[in-house]
Amino acid sequence: MRFLALLLLVSAGAVFAADDDIVGFNASASTSQRALEEQLDSIINADEMDEWLRRMSAEPHHVGSLASKENAEFIAELFESWGYDTEIVGYEILLPEPKTREIELVAPTSFTASLREETLAEDPSTAVRETLLQPYNAFSIDGEVEAELVFVNYGMPEDYEILERYGIDVTGKIAIAKYGRSWRGIKPKLAGEKGAIGTIIYSDPADDGYGAGDVYPKGPFKNDSGVQRGSVMDMPTYPGDVLTPGRGATERARRLKREDAPTITKIPVLPISYRDALPLLSAMGGEVVPQEWRGALPITYHLGPGPAKVRLKAEFDWNMVTAYNVIARLEGSEYPDEWVIRGNHHDGWNHGASDPLSGQVAMLAEAKAVARLAAAGHRPLRTIIYGAWDAEEPGLIGSTEWAEDHADELKEHAVAYLNTDGSARGFLGIGGSHVLERYLNQVADDVNDPRADISLKERSRANRMITGDEKSRSEAKNRKDLRISPLGSGSDYTPFLQHLGIASVNVGFGGEASDGSYHTLYDTYEHFTKFKDPGLTYGATLAKVTGRATLRLANAPRLPFDFKGLADNVALYVTELEELANGMRDKTMAENQLIKDGTYAVAMNPYTTFGPPLAKDPVPHFNFAPLKNALSRLQEAAEAFDAAAAENDAATEEVNKLLYTSERLLTREAGLDGRPWYKHHIYAPGFYTGYGVKTIPGVREAIEQREYDKVGPQIDIAAEVLNDLADRITTLTDML
Amino acid sequence: MRFLALLLLVSAGAVFAADDDIVGFNASASTSQRALEEQLDSIINADEMDEWLRRMSAEPHHVGSLASKENAEFIAELFESWGYDTEIVGYEILLPEPKTREIELVAPTSFTASLREETLAEDPSTAVRETLLQPYNAFSIDGEVEAELVFVNYGMPEDYEILERYGIDVTGKIAIAKYGRSWRGIKPKLAGEKGAIGTIIYSDPADDGYGAGDVYPKGPFKNDSGVQRGSVMDMPTYPGDVLTPGRGATERARRLKREDAPTITKIPVLPISYRDALPLLSAMGGEVVPQEWRGALPITYHLGPGPAKVRLKAEFDWNMVTAYNVIARLEGSEYPDEWVIRGNHHDGWNHGASDPLSGQVAMLAEAKAVARLAAAGHRPLRTIIYGAWDAEEPGLIGSTEWAEDHADELKEHAVAYLNTDGSARGFLGIGGSHVLERYLNQVADDVNDPRADISLKERSRANRMITGDEKSRSEAKNRKDLRISPLGSGSDYTPFLQHLGIASVNVGFGGEASDGSYHTLYDTYEHFTKFKDPGLTYGATLAKVTGRATLRLANAPRLPFDFKGLADNVALYVTELEELANGMRDKTMAENQLIKDGTYAVAMNPYTTFGPPLAKDPVPHFNFAPLKNALSRLQEAAEAFDAAAAENDAATEEVNKLLYTSERLLTREAGLDGRPWYKHHIYAPGFYTGYGVKTIPGVREAIEQREYDKVGPQIDIAAEVLNDLADRITTLTDML
Repeated sequence: MRFLALLLLVSAGAVFAADDDIVGFNASASTSQRALEEQLDSIINADEMDEWLRRMSAEPHHVGSLASKENAEFIAELFESWGYDTEIVGYEILLPEPKTREIELVAPTSFTASLREETLAEDPSTAVRETLLQPYNAFSIDGEVEAELVFVNYGMPEDYEILERYGIDVTGKIAIAKYGRSWRGIKPKLAGEKGAIGTIIYSDPADDGYGAGDVYPKGPFKNDSGVQRGSVMDMPTYPGDVLTPGRGATERARRLKREDAPTITKIPVLPISYRDALPLLSAMGGEVVPQEWRGALPITYHLGPGPAKVRLKAEFDWNMVTAYNVIARLEGSEYPDEWVIRGNHHDGWNHGASDPLSGQVAMLAEAKAVARLAAAGHRPLRTIIYGAWDAEEPGLIGSTEWAEDHADELKEHAVAYLNTDGSARGFLGIGGSHVLERYLNQVADDVNDPRADISLKERSRANRMITGDEKSRSEAKNRKDLRISPLGSGSDYTPFLQHLGIASVNVGFGGEASDGSYHTLYDTYEHFTKFKDPGLTYGATLAKVTGRATLRLANAPRLPFDFKGLADNVALYVTELEELANGMRDKTMAENQLIKDGTYAVAMNPYTTFGPPLAKDPVPHFNFAPLKNALSRLQEAAEAFDAAAAENDAATEEVNKLLYTSERLLTREAGLDGRPWYKHHIYAPGFYTGYGVKTIPGVREAIEQREYDKVGPQIDIAAEVLNDLADRITTLTDML
Repeated sequence: MRFLALLLLVSAGAVFAADDDIVGFNASASTSQRALEEQLDSIINADEMDEWLRRMSAEPHHVGSLASKENAEFIAELFESWGYDTEIVGYEILLPEPKTREIELVAPTSFTASLREETLAEDPSTAVRETLLQPYNAFSIDGEVEAELVFVNYGMPEDYEILERYGIDVTGKIAIAKYGRSWRGIKPKLAGEKGAIGTIIYSDPADDGYGAGDVYPKGPFKNDSGVQRGSVMDMPTYPGDVLTPGRGATERARRLKREDAPTITKIPVLPISYRDALPLLSAMGGEVVPQEWRGALPITYHLGPGPAKVRLKAEFDWNMVTAYNVIARLEGSEYPDEWVIRGNHHDGWNHGASDPLSGQVAMLAEAKAVARLAAAGHRPLRTIIYGAWDAEEPGLIGSTEWAEDHADELKEHAVAYLNTDGSARGFLGIGGSHVLERYLNQVADDVNDPRADISLKERSRANRMITGDEKSRSEAKNRKDLRISPLGSGSDYTPFLQHLGIASVNVGFGGEASDGSYHTLYDTYEHFTKFKDPGLTYGATLAKVTGRATLRLANAPRLPFDFKGLADNVALYVTELEELANGMRDKTMAENQLIKDGTYAVAMNPYTTFGPPLAKDPVPHFNFAPLKNALSRLQEAAEAFDAAAAENDAATEEVNKLLYTSERLLTREAGLDGRPWYKHHIYAPGFYTGYGVKTIPGVREAIEQREYDKVGPQIDIAAEVLNDLADRITTLTDML
């Protein structure tokens, strides 16, 4: 269509492939697009963002609170004032709020945990009491238990293997676990599976308290009363409203009974500060913990069980509340049925200045600029939909319910989903679907770091070259595009990517402002603007990044999907899977031999209870051929498409639709084994890590969890997925 | 001589090479020797050892104390009672004892360090006050200084590189360093070289306090008042009396003036407990320390400088005291001029139950058994000399003065030196000259672990197979002999091995009783027998090990020196040196490039003062050929000797003398560059690590310290040393 005429001007390989051109745009379109982006930059105003941040973080604004509703209304007003078709869409969700929280050491001494975060004179926001949401873990079951403590380190599967070697069983005990390493919901899930009857999670000062740096208010880290709140629902099974899996939680939706909701924990759990943890841990006996398990409290850590005995009581008000998503729409001028979706949640656990408002105000600044450009005659070609989600904190609920509610339309129309969340300062982190790797690299190369006179991409590259391990240093030096991270979970992209198969992106700044405010009372405007992004310099830069990301998707004549980058990353995962299996096989064989021949028994220290590990089933050889054959096809198809695309700028709606729905082919309606809500077969959050990604998860988790029978069938599914995509790419190539 | 007749009986390769035969013995001699060793075992009595330990550790017995003299007399009486020619040999040595010890925080708050270790009701030994030697670092210079503190981590060279990157200079400051990683004397030495005017050394609880395990008296680790004493003389320059380097400190020896003694520190230094360190470290400001530098105190550690300002005053009584070595001699029946020397010091910092008496009582038990066997008609063929050294703690003084005093005789007559020192329980650690590797492996294979029904050697192998890194696991699995460790310094073998070139050995048990009593008031009989070796089970086993080691050397028709083991280890060191140079070259080149092209500058966090490293001189290529050619010659000569030795059991005095003096060929009279006292060119303590060994030290330290001009000449010296040894081995082969 409009590009047809240009073909005449173009020499081979130069239309889309020129280094300076934006992928999806030819040379002149690239020039106009970049000019537009300069105008976008000029509209973004850090002072205005700062003012929005101050206003929206003035009060605790968790889902269901008055302040949260007011924030939604404020956001809606802004969008409306800029010319967006705006609505506030409510979903009726189950939300537990704390009613009784008690943790008491009952033996060998007594102590009652305060479970209270202190007000600081230096930060007026922390004076709030009435509307403060007390520290708790959302979607813990109600319960009262009393038992001896067992220290389970971070509460990960490998921690329980160590405990077994000490002969320690958590059955009938209360597990006390450190925050960190895994998503918090894994800790009570695994403790419960192992037989524990309750879980206490605390933040060790080694991780984000005085061991990491000066504590608030002197520095940004966790003081001794700070407690991380957070959801413990079983999100790796499904996120969103616990009563309406796979369906939008509309008023009249069919609902599970609460007692049947599988994502509520099986045992009660409460989070505590290190001030409250100290007397509990001090009262423990048993073996001294392994060296790597030690924290920074001034005590010797012991494994238990007991003699410390604790009573834990957790009761919640299980309310139905309304989650208010703000949905703002700017109809595309040429392709209104192709939707670029851009989101960031607005609910916080309390003031939520960093999480999520630092990202929210960047999205608002972007949206304002996009609207101003549209009003000035630069209306985007495709429809842009902004989503300011509610109820992300308790379990990605607002975004999930909306995505489930609109699943069919979204699968039909959604080009991509672009997400942000809390953001600070440092390096631009980019996660996403690898079909978008090249496009994201270009975006990051077109925006400069606000402190260093260099593009964000090149600063990230420099960082990888200095701090990366050998492999990533070498790659940073030699690979033109910086590798983007595959997405696990932890923010609102999950329903779009992993449930609906919409190519997704998540970006934000970090690495130069680590702190301990996350999900505490201390995530305030004062803390954020003092320590995490003073002047919102990086926040404004984030708006420039996401503004480009949104507008390029909205305006690209041909959507900037690139299959070579995807194939290159999938090749890496396939290699990793083989190495994983081989490594586990060798290690299992060697270890079983050392167990069998008595080497372990002889080498163990007879003065401790720490014994040899248990022998494990040998790891068989798996037939990776179907996956590798499919990968080869994918690689060839991607090469062919790339070559054809360089020669030809066909950009029909049909081509674009086949491009943006290509990510759908990576999903299967049946979903992953044991968790059908997760349909993507390349990216998923780990079943036993939570946020951490598992790539080619069906195969990877079958190997890791030693479910050897499942490996072959999962390889077949993954191969089928890749073959389907290869077919699609070939179809696309033929259309160019 | 006596072996000549046997030749007729022997088939090729079977005389000395049979697996069951003891190296140096033929089959029937092996059988008799092993029978003798069984008798030896039956004489060793753990209860008696326990009683000696209790008696000698009843009072603090540092050099110069009455108790130390009484212990020397007690030891001499025992030897005499068993039939040894015994004398107490005194040396007049300079010994500083603390007069004034003051550490005071003068800004921004004030605090005076107690510098006092507490008496514990649970351990009556700790009630001692009058004869207690207060915590200090021997051979600190006198001084009073006041300055801001800088936290220098462990005070190693690499720590100062990090400080430089933070723009921190210790000039004019007081360095506060953690105990550990390096020998303590390195800390004030390096701090002084960098311009600091004083040093404070403290024991961080992460290393051997509550961070490591329960503290004394509940557990074996350091409680908050415990202070590690210890020498800070510049032992890597020379050990022994600071006034008489290279000469025995006899009454009439020529002496340096104290102000000219180069091994006394240049700046004052005092050691403190973590209780005393806490207020000092808490008062520090500046940047937060790097993550790897953190300790376990419940604070955020800062680098300084200041605002914490400290006044440090250290004054000593510089007394001349007598160090009493006990020398006990059992004349050999056949080769009285070939001396097997066996030593362990007797002085402690205080009660010294573990260090050194646990080793001392094992030596006494061994000596008693050897004497009893001799009295029963099994007098050893060679002369055995037992040395119970005094004044090891302040700087290996007793042994060094004796070795220097008798240098010429020792070079002529000493077959080998066998050392022990404090020993606990766990695995048998073996360090030594690699000509003795095979012999030591046999000894360790002929004694069983007292807990596990397996030989000490095989238990060590099992431990390496479980806990070693990949390389050492594979080696433990595949190498018949366990690799023994090269010796650096830290106990009395140093003058024998590194000054005189006498093949040396150091053995002891450890790894299953780590603790924090080292050099504190809490190294008592109560502590030792509760936590480190209850019932002296491992102590008695140690006596069986060293008894075998002593008797096999004393009785072997042909001395059990093996050159293949040596050549194999030297080959490893040569490979390491090339890898070291290559690794440094690659790293320097890569890092210089990243500095030059600005990658470092761009990647650094602009919110900290931590900057890029300084560029370093490129590492040239070195000519390793002379060393590798010499190694090849050594390997060939060793092979030829081994083959010849298997065929032939010639064991003349001439052969034996050429065997035991072969280690002398590894020395050079000129000594190492800058430290002529150290004459061995294969083993030396690191100039900047102290106890840690540097193999082929001339070459290795020239590379590590980037003194590139020195590498070539040092390679030539090392090659010459190996060539000389190869010549000697060839001569020996020709004599067989």
